[in-house]
Amino acid sequence: MVLPMQDDHFDIDGDTLHEECGVFGILGHPEAATLTALGLHALQHRGQEAAGIVTFDGRQFHSERQLGLVGDHYTNPATLARLPGHMAMGHVRYSTTGETILRNVQPLFAELEVGGIAIAHNGNFTNGLTLRRQLIASGAICQSTSDTEVVLHLIARSRRQSSSDRFLDAIGHLEGAYALVALTRTKLIGARDPNGIRPLVLGELDGKPIFASETCALDIIGAKFVRDVENGEVVICEMQANGEITIESIKPRVPVRERVCLFEYVYFARPDSVVAGRSVYGARKRMGINLAQEAPVEADVVVPVPDGGTPAAIGYAQASGIPFELGIIRNHYVGRTFIEPTQSIRAFGVKLKHSANRAEIAGKRVVLVDDSIVRGTTSVKIVQMIREAGAKEVHIRVASPMIYHSDYYGIDTPDPEKLLANQYADIEAMCRYIGADSLQFLSIDGLYKAVGGEPRNPLAPQFTDHYFTGEYPTPLTDLNGRQKNEPKQISLMREAG
Amino acid sequence: MVLPMQDDHFDIDGDTLHEECGVFGILGHPEAATLTALGLHALQHRGQEAAGIVTFDGRQFHSERQLGLVGDHYTNPATLARLPGHMAMGHVRYSTTGETILRNVQPLFAELEVGGIAIAHNGNFTNGLTLRRQLIASGAICQSTSDTEVVLHLIARSRRQSSSDRFLDAIGHLEGAYALVALTRTKLIGARDPNGIRPLVLGELDGKPIFASETCALDIIGAKFVRDVENGEVVICEMQANGEITIESIKPRVPVRERVCLFEYVYFARPDSVVAGRSVYGARKRMGINLAQEAPVEADVVVPVPDGGTPAAIGYAQASGIPFELGIIRNHYVGRTFIEPTQSIRAFGVKLKHSANRAEIAGKRVVLVDDSIVRGTTSVKIVQMIREAGAKEVHIRVASPMIYHSDYYGIDTPDPEKLLANQYADIEAMCRYIGADSLQFLSIDGLYKAVGGEPRNPLAPQFTDHYFTGEYPTPLTDLNGRQKNEPKQISLMREAG
Amino acid sequence: MVLPMQDDHFDIDGDTLHEECGVFGILGHPEAATLTALGLHALQHRGQEAAGIVTFDGRQFHSERQLGLVGDHYTNPATLARLPGHMAMGHVRYSTTGETILRNVQPLFAELEVGGIAIAHNGNFTNGLTLRRQLIASGAICQSTSDTEVVLHLIARSRRQSSSDRFLDAIGHLEGAYALVALTRTKLIGARDPNGIRPLVLGELDGKPIFASETCALDIIGAKFVRDVENGEVVICEMQANGEITIESIKPRVPVRERVCLFEYVYFARPDSVVAGRSVYGARKRMGINLAQEAPVEADVVVPVPDGGTPAAIGYAQASGIPFELGIIRNHYVGRTFIEPTQSIRAFGVKLKHSANRAEIAGKRVVLVDDSIVRGTTSVKIVQMIREAGAKEVHIRVASPMIYHSDYYGIDTPDPEKLLANQYADIEAMCRYIGADSLQFLSIDGLYKAVGGEPRNPLAPQFTDHYFTGEYPTPLTDLNGRQKNEPKQISLMREAG
Amino acid sequence: MVLPMQDDHFDIDGDTLHEECGVFGILGHPEAATLTALGLHALQHRGQEAAGIVTFDGRQFHSERQLGLVGDHYTNPATLARLPGHMAMGHVRYSTTGETILRNVQPLFAELEVGGIAIAHNGNFTNGLTLRRQLIASGAICQSTSDTEVVLHLIARSRRQSSSDRFLDAIGHLEGAYALVALTRTKLIGARDPNGIRPLVLGELDGKPIFASETCALDIIGAKFVRDVENGEVVICEMQANGEITIESIKPRVPVRERVCLFEYVYFARPDSVVAGRSVYGARKRMGINLAQEAPVEADVVVPVPDGGTPAAIGYAQASGIPFELGIIRNHYVGRTFIEPTQSIRAFGVKLKHSANRAEIAGKRVVLVDDSIVRGTTSVKIVQMIREAGAKEVHIRVASPMIYHSDYYGIDTPDPEKLLANQYADIEAMCRYIGADSLQFLSIDGLYKAVGGEPRNPLAPQFTDHYFTGEYPTPLTDLNGRQKNEPKQISLMREAG
Repeated sequence: MVLPMQDDHFDIDGDTLHEECGVFGILGHPEAATLTALGLHALQHRGQEAAGIVTFDGRQFHSERQLGLVGDHYTNPATLARLPGHMAMGHVRYSTTGETILRNVQPLFAELEVGGIAIAHNGNFTNGLTLRRQLIASGAICQSTSDTEVVLHLIARSRRQSSSDRFLDAIGHLEGAYALVALTRTKLIGARDPNGIRPLVLGELDGKPIFASETCALDIIGAKFVRDVENGEVVICEMQANGEITIESIKPRVPVRERVCLFEYVYFARPDSVVAGRSVYGARKRMGINLAQEAPVEADVVVPVPDGGTPAAIGYAQASGIPFELGIIRNHYVGRTFIEPTQSIRAFGVKLKHSANRAEIAGKRVVLVDDSIVRGTTSVKIVQMIREAGAKEVHIRVASPMIYHSDYYGIDTPDPEKLLANQYADIEAMCRYIGADSLQFLSIDGLYKAVGGEPRNPLAPQFTDHYFTGEYPTPLTDLNGRQKNEPKQISLMREAG
Repeated sequence: MVLPMQDDHFDIDGDTLHEECGVFGILGHPEAATLTALGLHALQHRGQEAAGIVTFDGRQFHSERQLGLVGDHYTNPATLARLPGHMAMGHVRYSTTGETILRNVQPLFAELEVGGIAIAHNGNFTNGLTLRRQLIASGAICQSTSDTEVVLHLIARSRRQSSSDRFLDAIGHLEGAYALVALTRTKLIGARDPNGIRPLVLGELDGKPIFASETCALDIIGAKFVRDVENGEVVICEMQANGEITIESIKPRVPVRERVCLFEYVYFARPDSVVAGRSVYGARKRMGINLAQEAPVEADVVVPVPDGGTPAAIGYAQASGIPFELGIIRNHYVGRTFIEPTQSIRAFGVKLKHSANRAEIAGKRVVLVDDSIVRGTTSVKIVQMIREAGAKEVHIRVASPMIYHSDYYGIDTPDPEKLLANQYADIEAMCRYIGADSLQFLSIDGLYKAVGGEPRNPLAPQFTDHYFTGEYPTPLTDLNGRQKNEPKQISLMREAG
Repeated sequence: MVLPMQDDHFDIDGDTLHEECGVFGILGHPEAATLTALGLHALQHRGQEAAGIVTFDGRQFHSERQLGLVGDHYTNPATLARLPGHMAMGHVRYSTTGETILRNVQPLFAELEVGGIAIAHNGNFTNGLTLRRQLIASGAICQSTSDTEVVLHLIARSRRQSSSDRFLDAIGHLEGAYALVALTRTKLIGARDPNGIRPLVLGELDGKPIFASETCALDIIGAKFVRDVENGEVVICEMQANGEITIESIKPRVPVRERVCLFEYVYFARPDSVVAGRSVYGARKRMGINLAQEAPVEADVVVPVPDGGTPAAIGYAQASGIPFELGIIRNHYVGRTFIEPTQSIRAFGVKLKHSANRAEIAGKRVVLVDDSIVRGTTSVKIVQMIREAGAKEVHIRVASPMIYHSDYYGIDTPDPEKLLANQYADIEAMCRYIGADSLQFLSIDGLYKAVGGEPRNPLAPQFTDHYFTGEYPTPLTDLNGRQKNEPKQISLMREAG
Repeated sequence: MVLPMQDDHFDIDGDTLHEECGVFGILGHPEAATLTALGLHALQHRGQEAAGIVTFDGRQFHSERQLGLVGDHYTNPATLARLPGHMAMGHVRYSTTGETILRNVQPLFAELEVGGIAIAHNGNFTNGLTLRRQLIASGAICQSTSDTEVVLHLIARSRRQSSSDRFLDAIGHLEGAYALVALTRTKLIGARDPNGIRPLVLGELDGKPIFASETCALDIIGAKFVRDVENGEVVICEMQANGEITIESIKPRVPVRERVCLFEYVYFARPDSVVAGRSVYGARKRMGINLAQEAPVEADVVVPVPDGGTPAAIGYAQASGIPFELGIIRNHYVGRTFIEPTQSIRAFGVKLKHSANRAEIAGKRVVLVDDSIVRGTTSVKIVQMIREAGAKEVHIRVASPMIYHSDYYGIDTPDPEKLLANQYADIEAMCRYIGADSLQFLSIDGLYKAVGGEPRNPLAPQFTDHYFTGEYPTPLTDLNGRQKNEPKQISLMREAG
C-alpha cells in the first residue's frame, strides 16, 4: 500500500524514500521460526515498524505480530516457543505513523474450507482499491486496510479446490508489483509479479527450500543461494506425505522481460546482497565511478553522506584520485529514539544523527557523495553543517538521476510537487537552494551502465525506472479510476492500538 | 461463545459461574463515549476481561478495544478524545485465559458497501459453529473466534439494501440467546432473542435512547428506564436528517412467551438492577425467606458467603429470627491480583479472599447462606475455615437448586461430570464431601416463587432453567451436529496478543 | 509522615481518613517471603499505594519495593525467587499522589559497620523533621523524604556495638507514634511507642516468631496469636548459632498506660482483627447499638454506607428492631481504576462506586449509618443519591463523634478548617449542609463504652482520641518548632519515578 | 566503578572494552535541560545503559533518572517539562547487567545543610572502597553501590562552609581517575583528576559556560570550544546575584604532567571529537598509516572491522596503496535488541551484527584492520566469516598494542588471564588461535607517535598506558588493601528494579 509521506512528520532519517517490506519463508526445517527470525533480522532495512511470523506445526497455525524490530521480540525463548513447527514465514514492514496498527501487520491469515493460509507481501497492487471495492460489494468483510488482504479474499472466494490453485487464481487478478510468500498446511509458495519489480530469491539450507527478499537473509543463516524466483513465476514447495519436499515452477502468464526496480540498487537493498545476479555494493561503487567520470571536480576530499552514499563515494574517490575520508560521523544511537521530540529538539534535525568531522573538513574543498536526493531538505542542512565546520567549497554529487515521478509499487514517495526536481526550473536553481558550490546528478545511462553494463534501451527498458522517466511498467488502475477530490481514505474505521 | 472452565486454572473467585458480557449503546448525545464508559463500568460485573467502545462522528467510526477493566482505560481524557461523536456503543467481556485475545474483543466492526456497522453481543448462538462453517465454505474470512463475527458476515452477505434490513435478515439465521446492540452511521439497534434469555432494556437520557443489559447502567448516568426490549423484538433508533430521533419496533418472528434466564436473578445481575420488572435484590431476599421456610435449622447466627449470598442471608435471618452477622470478611484487594501465584500461595486458596471473623464464629452454630454451588470445591474450603475459627456447627443453605446441566447460552459452566450434583449419589454424600453438619438447597418451586411469585409451570416454564432441569429452551444445533470426539477447536490459528 | 490531603485530588474513596502503613516480619521460616507477602496482603487495607519486602539469606539481604498492591507483584514465582532466606519483613504504605515515589517505599535499608539493617514503620514521629535537620547539619545524607529514614541514621550513628543496642539507642530519640519492625542478620525486632498508639502483635507459626500490625495477618497464614507487643516494649527475636530462637523483652522507658488510637476501632483495622484484646467487629457493632440508644429514630429501614458502616448498621438494626437492608450497592471494580478521569466523569463522583438500591429505598424512611464523617462532602452526595431513589426521609447516624482536630500520628487528615465539625456552628447547620432530615453522632462516652466498656476517664483517657477532644498524647515538637509560614517542603529534590 | 566482564553474558557488541560514563552541564541557559539532553545524546557512545538529568529552577532541584538511551526519554515534551530551570547537568552510564539498577544511575544528589548538590562522575576512584568503609564506620548510610556516592558523603561531612569549599575538601581525598561535574543552587563545577586521565572540556553557548566529556557534545548544540579543563583543575562557574556568571579556576594540588588515557584515542572517544587538542579521527588514521609502515603485507583489499577499525583502515589503505573496501557490512538494527536470545540464536553471534560482503572478498587477499583485540573471541568469528566468503588470505592488522593489564580507571576489562595476550606464548600462537594468515599489532611507539607525535618517554610517559605497559599512573589503594579471596561484593543488599 502506498501511503503519502507526511510533511509535518519528524523524520530523523531525513529526506529518503522508504521501502515497505521484506519477506521470508522456510519449509521443513526443525528450527523454522528461529531461522525466519534471523532472516527477517537481515531484512530489517526493508521495514522497521513491525514484524510478524506465522508457523504451522502439523495441526495448528501459530502467529506473532508485533510493532517494533525483529530483535525486540522474535529472538527470546518465550516468543519462539509460541511458534512451533517445521514451516514458517515472516514479514517486516515499514509504514507511516498514522497507520502503524496491529491489524495491518503481516503475515495475514485466513481459514479456508480447505485449511488455513497465511500470506506476506512486498510491493503494491495498482488495482488494490478497485478489487477491494468489488469484494466489499459482494459481502466480504475487510479487517485491515492493507491491500494484501485482497489476495486473501480472492483466495477464499476462488472456486478451485487446492490452496495452490486458489493462489494462482487469485494472483491472476493482481496488477502492480509483488513478491508474495504464502504458507498452507503443506506448502510454501513464492511468487513474483510479471515484471519482477520486487526481488525474491530461492535458497536452500540442509536441503530445505527458502524464499527471501534478498540474498543477505540467506547469508546470515548460512543458506545457499539457488536462483532468483523469475518474474511472473510461482514456485510451489510442497511437503509430501513421505516427508519429501517437491518443488514445482509455474508461469501462469505469458512471459515478459524482467524489469527490476532500479531503486533496489540505488538505495533499498543491502550492499552485501546480490539482486538479479548483480552485487549491490559493486553497482553502487560503479555509480560512483561513473559519476566521477560524468561530473569531475577539483577537490581535496571525498566525503560520503552516511550510510547510503558510502559505496559510491569510495568509487568516486578511487576513480578521481581524491582521498576518501569520513567527514561526516553518524550517531549510532538514533534508532527508534526521539519519538515526538519537543520543537526545540526537532530544530536540531540532522545534527541528531550526523555531525561534521571538523578536522577533516576545515579549509578543504569537499565533494559530498549522496545516493539520491528526494526533496532536498536534508541536503540543505548537511551542506550548512559542512560549511559551519569550515569547508572552503562544497560540491554535491548524486549517484542517481533526478526524481520527478511518484512510485506506485511499494515505495513511499512524497507528492510530486514536493520533489526537488519539480520545484526548481533547473539544476542551478536547485544548487542555490541547497547552498552548494556545485551539484551534479548521475545520468540515467550512467546508472543503467553501473547496474547492468548497458545504457538504457528506450524501446524496452531493462529496469523499472518511472521515478526518473515517467514510464510506468504496468497500468495504474486505481489512480486512473479515482474521482477527482475523492478521499484516499481506505477504511471508515479508526482504531487505536 | 461457551468456553470450558479449566480445572487447572487458579480461580480466586472460587467456584462460581461466569457470565460473558454486558452491552450498552446511546444515540444522539454529545457525551456519547463518556456515558458509554460509565454504563459499561456499571455493567463490569458481567465481564471483567476486556472492554471496547465504538463511536461514529458523522464521518468516521472510531474504535478502542482493550483488555482490562473499563476504568483502566476509558475514563482518561486521551482515550475519550479518540472516541468522538454523538453515537456510541460498547461491550464488556468475560473469557477464560487462553482465549483472551484482542481480536475477540467486541464491538466487532465491518465495512459494508452501504457503510460501516459495529455490533456487540451478550449470549451465545447454539448454531454459531454451524453457521461459521457454512460461511467459510462460501469464501468468508473469519478474523476472530467469536461467534459474534457470524452476525457480521450474515449482514455483509445479505442482499437487502439498508443496514437495518440486513440486520433483520441476519438474526433470522440465529438460534440461542442474544442481546445484541448494533451501530450504523444513523442507527442504534437493540435486539433480544425470541425467548428473551438475556436481558436488554431501553432507557432514555435527555430524550436520547439508550440500550443496556441492566437498569444499573441507566441509574449511574441518571437515565430513565423506559421499558424492557421484549423477547424477539428488534428496536431501531434512527437519527433523521432533521436531527430528530425515531424509534421503531419490529417483531420479525411469531411471538413466544418470555423466558428470562433464572441465573440472572440467582447470581449474575447486580442486586440494584430490575430485570424483567423484578428487583434482583428483592428476588434474592425472597430466595432466602423461602429457604428459611423450606430448610429451617436451629442456630446462633446467619452468615452470608460474601458477596453473592448476602441478600439471601438477610432474608433467611429475617424469616428465621436468627441474627445476621458478617462472619466472613472479604478482602477487597484481590481484584486482578494474584496472577500466576506460586504453588505455595495457591494453596491458601479461599483465604486470599475471605477470612473468618473469629469473634462472631467461635462457639456458635452457624448457618452459611450461599447463592449457588457449582463444583463445591470452594464450599469445602469455606466450611474448613469456619470450623477452624471455632464454629460448633456449620449448616449450609443454598439459595438455588442443584445444578446438573451445562449452559449453552453464554454462561461458562464446567463439564457436567464436574458438577457437585453429578458427583455424589445424594445430598448426604455431598454434605459429607463439603464437611458441613447439614446441607439444603432451595427447591425449583421455591426459586420460581421467589422470582416470579408462582411455582414452575412444567408445561410452559416461565423461565430458562435447564441447568437445574435439563429442559433447554432452544435446539442445540452445534452440539447435536458435532461428531463424536470432534475437537472443539474453533480456529486453526493461535495468536498471541 | 503526615501528608496534607489535596483538595483537588479526585478521591473516589470519598471523604475518609487514610492510615499510612502496615508492617509484618517473620524469623526462621523456610517460606519467610511467601508468608510475608500473605501477611501484607491481609494488611492491604492499611496501605494500598506501595509494598516492599526485605529478606536475609544468611549472606546477603534482598529487597523488592514496588508501587501497587501486594498481589500485583509479590505472589508470582519470579519475584519470590528474588527474595530467598528464612528471615523476612515487609511493609504496605498509603501516601498521597505527589509523593508516591519509589525512594520512599519501605522497608528502608542501611549497611552499618556491624552489618545491614532494614526497618519498616507504621505511625509518625512528632519530632521527625527536627531530628532530620539535626542529622543533615552533622553531615547525614537523606535519600528519602520518609521520616522513617531518621531512625536508620540514628542507628548508623549510634556508638553502641550491637545492632539491637543501636536500635534501642535510636528509638530513645523518637517522639510520637510507632510500630516498628527491624531485621538484622540474626534478629527480628518489634517495637511499639510508649503510648502504644499504633498496634503491633506477636504471633507464632511452627514455633517461629512473627510481628504484624493486626491479627488478621496471623489468621491468613494460620499462625497463632501470642500476645500484643506492649506499649513502650521492644521485643528482640534472635536466631542463635545453634538454630534456636530466643525472644527477649525490653522496656527502655518508664512505663505509662497504653492508649491505643480509637480510629483503629472506628475505621482502620479490619473487622476480623482483635486489637488490644478487643474484637474490632464487636466494637463497631456496639457503636451501632449505643448509637441506636443515644439517637433513636422512627424509620423503615437501616442502610449501611458500605463498607465501613456495615457492622454499626447491623448493631443499630438489632438494637432498634428496624430491618437491615443493603440499600446502597458497592461497585467492586473501582479499585485503582479511574486514574485521572475526565472532568465529566469526575462529576459522577460517588456514583462510580456506590449506587442506590431503588427497590429498597423508594417510599421509605431510611436510617443511613456511617462510621465517621470527615469533611462531609461524600455524605452530601450519598444523601442526594438516596433521595433521588425515592426515600421519604433520610436520617444520618454516625458511629463516632465529630472530628475537630488534626492527627500527627500517621493518619492523613485534612486541614482542620476543612473538617465538617469546624465549618458549621452547630449540628443543625451540618445537617442542612448534608441535606438530611436528621443527623446524630455517637458521643465520646458512647464510643469509649463500645470499645472498652467504660466511659472516658477525663483525667487519664484510656485511648488516644485527640481528633475528637484535642488532647494529644505526646508533645508536638515539629509543629511547635515550625516558623510561621515556613514551607512544609521536606526535600529540595523532586524526582520522577 | 570497575565491574568484571561476565564471560557468559551474550555481548553482541563483541569483544570490546567498555567505558562507563559521559558527563555534561550548563549554567544560566533557558533551555538548560534540552541542551543537556542533546549533549548527552552526543555522548551516548560513552554509556548506553542509563541516563539522568538534574536541574535547579531557583527554588527546587528536579531529577530524572532512567534506564535506556537519552533519546528514549529525554527528548519528549513531558519529560523536559519536569526539568525546569536555567541550570542543568546530566550523565550517561554504561554498566554490566547485574548492576543496572536505578539507585546507581547518576547524577546523585544530596541535601546539605547549605543546600542541595548533585554530582556526576566519569572515571573510577582507586581508593573508593577504602573511603566507603571509613564512611560507613563513622555512621554514613550508602544508598547506592556507586563509588560516586563517596564524594557526596565527603562533601556532606566537610566542615567547610560553602558548597564549593566542601567540594574541594572532598576531592582532596580521592585517588584515581575522574571527570566530575557538580551542580549547586548557584554553581556549576567541573573537575579533572591530577593526571587528567579522563577528558573534560569547557565550552560556551550564548555566553553561558558548559562542561562536557568530549567536544562532540559542544558541536551538536552549536557551542564553542573554549579549552580543556586541565588535569588537576577545578573550574567553578557561579551565577551571581546580579545575573552575571563568574568563572574561577583552582588547582588545589601540586601540578603534574597531564597523562590522558590512550584508549580514548584508540576506541572510546567519537572520531569527530578533539581530545586534549588532538583530532581523534586524525590520530586513528595515523595509527593506520604507522601500522602500514610497521606491518606491511601484499594484499588486494583493505577491509575495516566496522565501525572502530574504519579510520585506521583508511589510513592503512592510503599508506599502502591497497584499495579500501567495505568488505564487512554492519546491521544497523542491532542496538538494544536480541536481549536474552535463545541458545540457537546466540550461536549466530557476530553474524547478527556483521555480514561479509562476498563480492568484495571472494578470491581476494584481505587485510582486516581492527582498532584493538581484547580476548580475541570475536576476531576468531570474523576471520571465519571472511574465509567462508571465499577470501584467499586473511591478514589481521591491529591499530594498537597487545593488552596485558586490567584498567582501574573506569574501563571495564576482563580478568587479565582472559586477555588474548596473556593466553598465548607468542604472536604466532595468537595468530593460529584466531585463524588468520598473519597477525600484527601496532607498537607502543607507533601508537604514541600517531597520537602525540613523539615516541613514548619511558621516564615520564606522556599518556596513561598501563593496559599495554603495566605502569599505573596512581596508587591502587583498594586493590593492594584487599585481602586474598576477599569478595568484591560492594553492598550487602541486592535490589531489583
